[in-house]
Amino acid sequence: MKRTALIGQLAPYSDQTVTLQGWVNRRRDLGGLIFIELRDRSGVVQVQVEPDSAAFAEADQLRAEYVAEVEGRFQLRPESQRKGGLGDYEVIAARVKVLNAAKTPAFELDKGDQVAEDIRLKYRYLDLRRPEMQRALMLRSKAVAAVTAFLEAEGFVQVETPMLTRSTPEGARDFLVPSRLSAGEFYALPQSPQLFKQLLMIAGFDRYYQLARCFRDEDLRADRQPDFTQLDMEMSFVEQDDVLELQERLMAHVFREVLGVELPLPFPRLSYQDAMDRYGSDKPDLRFGLEFAEMTDLFAGGGFKAFASAASVKAIVAPELTRKQIDELERVAKQNGAGGLAWLRREGKGFTGGISKFVGDLAPELIARTGVPEGGTLLFAAGEWKKAVSALGAVRLALRDLFGLAAAGPAFHVSWVVDFPQLDYDEDSASWTYMHHPFTAPHPDDVALFGTARQGEIRAQAYDLVLNGFEVGGGSVRIHDPEVQAKMFAAIGMSDADAREKFGFFLDALASGTPPHGGIAWGFDRLIMVMAGAASIREVIAFPKNNRGADLMAGAPSVVDAPQLAEVGVAVLAGE
Amino acid sequence: MKRTALIGQLAPYSDQTVTLQGWVNRRRDLGGLIFIELRDRSGVVQVQVEPDSAAFAEADQLRAEYVAEVEGRFQLRPESQRKGGLGDYEVIAARVKVLNAAKTPAFELDKGDQVAEDIRLKYRYLDLRRPEMQRALMLRSKAVAAVTAFLEAEGFVQVETPMLTRSTPEGARDFLVPSRLSAGEFYALPQSPQLFKQLLMIAGFDRYYQLARCFRDEDLRADRQPDFTQLDMEMSFVEQDDVLELQERLMAHVFREVLGVELPLPFPRLSYQDAMDRYGSDKPDLRFGLEFAEMTDLFAGGGFKAFASAASVKAIVAPELTRKQIDELERVAKQNGAGGLAWLRREGKGFTGGISKFVGDLAPELIARTGVPEGGTLLFAAGEWKKAVSALGAVRLALRDLFGLAAAGPAFHVSWVVDFPQLDYDEDSASWTYMHHPFTAPHPDDVALFGTARQGEIRAQAYDLVLNGFEVGGGSVRIHDPEVQAKMFAAIGMSDADAREKFGFFLDALASGTPPHGGIAWGFDRLIMVMAGAASIREVIAFPKNNRGADLMAGAPSVVDAPQLAEVGVAVLAGE
Repeated sequence: MKRTALIGQLAPYSDQTVTLQGWVNRRRDLGGLIFIELRDRSGVVQVQVEPDSAAFAEADQLRAEYVAEVEGRFQLRPESQRKGGLGDYEVIAARVKVLNAAKTPAFELDKGDQVAEDIRLKYRYLDLRRPEMQRALMLRSKAVAAVTAFLEAEGFVQVETPMLTRSTPEGARDFLVPSRLSAGEFYALPQSPQLFKQLLMIAGFDRYYQLARCFRDEDLRADRQPDFTQLDMEMSFVEQDDVLELQERLMAHVFREVLGVELPLPFPRLSYQDAMDRYGSDKPDLRFGLEFAEMTDLFAGGGFKAFASAASVKAIVAPELTRKQIDELERVAKQNGAGGLAWLRREGKGFTGGISKFVGDLAPELIARTGVPEGGTLLFAAGEWKKAVSALGAVRLALRDLFGLAAAGPAFHVSWVVDFPQLDYDEDSASWTYMHHPFTAPHPDDVALFGTARQGEIRAQAYDLVLNGFEVGGGSVRIHDPEVQAKMFAAIGMSDADAREKFGFFLDALASGTPPHGGIAWGFDRLIMVMAGAASIREVIAFPKNNRGADLMAGAPSVVDAPQLAEVGVAVLAGE
Repeated sequence: MKRTALIGQLAPYSDQTVTLQGWVNRRRDLGGLIFIELRDRSGVVQVQVEPDSAAFAEADQLRAEYVAEVEGRFQLRPESQRKGGLGDYEVIAARVKVLNAAKTPAFELDKGDQVAEDIRLKYRYLDLRRPEMQRALMLRSKAVAAVTAFLEAEGFVQVETPMLTRSTPEGARDFLVPSRLSAGEFYALPQSPQLFKQLLMIAGFDRYYQLARCFRDEDLRADRQPDFTQLDMEMSFVEQDDVLELQERLMAHVFREVLGVELPLPFPRLSYQDAMDRYGSDKPDLRFGLEFAEMTDLFAGGGFKAFASAASVKAIVAPELTRKQIDELERVAKQNGAGGLAWLRREGKGFTGGISKFVGDLAPELIARTGVPEGGTLLFAAGEWKKAVSALGAVRLALRDLFGLAAAGPAFHVSWVVDFPQLDYDEDSASWTYMHHPFTAPHPDDVALFGTARQGEIRAQAYDLVLNGFEVGGGSVRIHDPEVQAKMFAAIGMSDADAREKFGFFLDALASGTPPHGGIAWGFDRLIMVMAGAASIREVIAFPKNNRGADLMAGAPSVVDAPQLAEVGVAVLAGE
């Protein structure tokens, strides 16, 4: 019952007798012959069964998605019928064997992209037979192997960190697991291996990696999963540049091995300030331009009141837009926090439409600063800096989608965003909090600013890896000095007692001989999604949950028996 | 701050200036000089700091487990002081920098093996600094890389299966996870990816692998963890021999890459019947002999009542034993289900002691069958077959430990146990159940026995991988024919309705075009434990739970706030 090779690997067997195994992709009967398209994960080939052949009776039982074994001659089709690739070939069946029957599939596989996602998830074992899904998961597997080989060669040690760990009140909501042996107590599923990977550095492992399953019980947006996968890494005795340099080689290796794509090194680095100022995003899509022009000074104190007193005014150059397109872009700007979206159309040496009556003699300078061409549109956002640039950043992406701007650039553009703020001021609670996590090291030049009025200016030694406008990785150099750690806790209003209560064992570890260290985690699902050209991370996860957190195939979550609950010492709250 | 190399990789830098980073393993002051043993994961080297050197003041601050950077000349020590390996070398410090201080460690690392395990677990970040622990985890990492490279080259696709899945009443107790989005419902953590890997075969992935985290809420024995790691694999269009052949090459590859050990191929195969008959174990340690001799016929109907009517009598040859040793071995036999342990000491042509008065003229045949030498001891177990051989199997292992018998054999002996029974009769419930799991395929020659009085004789296409007396892997060819699956469910008394209730979605999948397939899972923790020569799987897991399921370092499980519980819709049961 041995096959000669996978269908996609038959090329060397031309004019030879081969044995194939796979699924009936399609059956057609024509002129007394049976034509079977036989499919495996590597490809599809046409099998021809002649009416007088010994194979005919068995072949005649075959229906869609039956599993079959075929023995026959693998040969080139007549020249006029060749369709390229495997379509140049056919198999003339000498023997056919039905290995297993199949019920009529719940949906036609080659129309899978038109089927409701819930149906695809319910019959995931059918959905996964679709070549797109198989390609995506095989790509993912190749990426894992490439990562493993690279990091192993670079001296990284793969270590598994605990899946049943302690609930911490920081960060997102934990998934809880009742403990049977310690009644009334709970484990938490890990949100990330952050503390454990730092402990491994403290323990002297020097370089660590893991493809870590992580869990966050958040309300699910379109592109979130309750459990997801992180490529988690950490290095000792390094500074930020060491981490970035190694990460660039790793990413280039993965793209080369998996896609045959050469990424130019080094990756461009933008500061957070620059990324926001120029593209209105801390994960800018740099496959295309459309950089913002600075307008604040131009309008300051001028006649257009909305701009005159704005902390920040930015402009972007769009192609000629219809009124309807401008309205749609204004909707995007408002959704993203702007009060509105001012605009101008260039006509000759001046502007028409929108706010043109306020332009006056600013026209030459506006044209010089933006380079807006004849007929082109200038779009403006104004207001508080972060709100203004973020709204215009969203408009920039809408223009990308409207005009297909990304297609002009490279298929994959990777960059770093660096120099994030260490601290974030939360208006609602009127308090400071951390931007990344409380163990991120500040820039050494900025440590003196802790506890001063200027602590918002402290730069973190934190970095994000950005691919085609997606954040695919994020990390930082960590604090290894207990005194700096204490300053950080103080800055976010955490008392010593609080810190001990929450992180006591970790603070003890930190004082036990901690090397300088830093690391990063890749959002592996998202990276693979972009590499595979998929629209959602669910397309690169074999058995994902839907947006209610349900596995529609296995039927999870589900009600469990009262005795099973009693054993772990919990009860379902009344009314639920 | 770049180091020249890890300490263990300094050999090429003899007589050169090097930069090293690591931990202070020990500090000694002698004759005005400071001697620092500097340690990283690769080794330890002695650093000599002279009193008049620029390095002295900073070096003088160093204490045990401080983190330091040292620049100096790496050179051979005076011939009389060389200790082999790195001990042949020393570093004459030109510059020393304290990178971080350390509190006095909770225990001395080089006495770690004498420290209570709970202390080691509480301060795991210190315990993991011990070279034994680092070696074990680095070995584990190398094994992961070797497995990944091999399986990738063999066309296996790495796929992640769900961590939040459906509770099934089969098998061990599930860990439950309350769902917040579906109040009153629960996920279960996976006991194994069994159904999912079969679904991947149904989906056409052909060859699958995963290092899968698995969870079983069982009462913890000395060598169990609530979560553990399986190397999980599955192949389509294969028969048992195909799986075994590939597994042998994989295991040989791992031993070669990780330990430089060549395992002789193919691995010996014993049937379950043979393994039990000859060694009293379904995971026999074959590094040494001590095979059982068959005695049932010899004593049948004879004068020694206990043996005369026994279904099975087996003997084993031990060296000369003291009375105390025999008592201890009898205790082992009784603990393992035997009524007692009969014995004889050979003297000349006859026997003394124990049951010698019943031997009579059987002596020559006893000597011929067992080859017991002068002064040697024969040990007997008798009774119901499985009880008798199991008890004597335990005695065999006790003799191994008593006399160090394993040392005579190869360091690693791998074998297969095959032809397990398909069904197991449970005396307590007077009912049949499955031996492996309900999806294991029976031997094709035995299918006709389902539902007959002889169904206990049905052999499964199941196989266990045995290393030095440990079961390190287990798997089977799976049922792909829905009719055979129905016979199997019937044999274990599961109605159609029950089967649908428990496995409905899987049975639908099985009827949707399932290829013949089979697979295996390695108990990865245990395999690494044996490869590393460790005494427990906790020695090859970075952050294990203790035998109460507790993480003593992080403090898990723990009590969580009532509001956090309310959010996921559960309450702790009163009285707990």
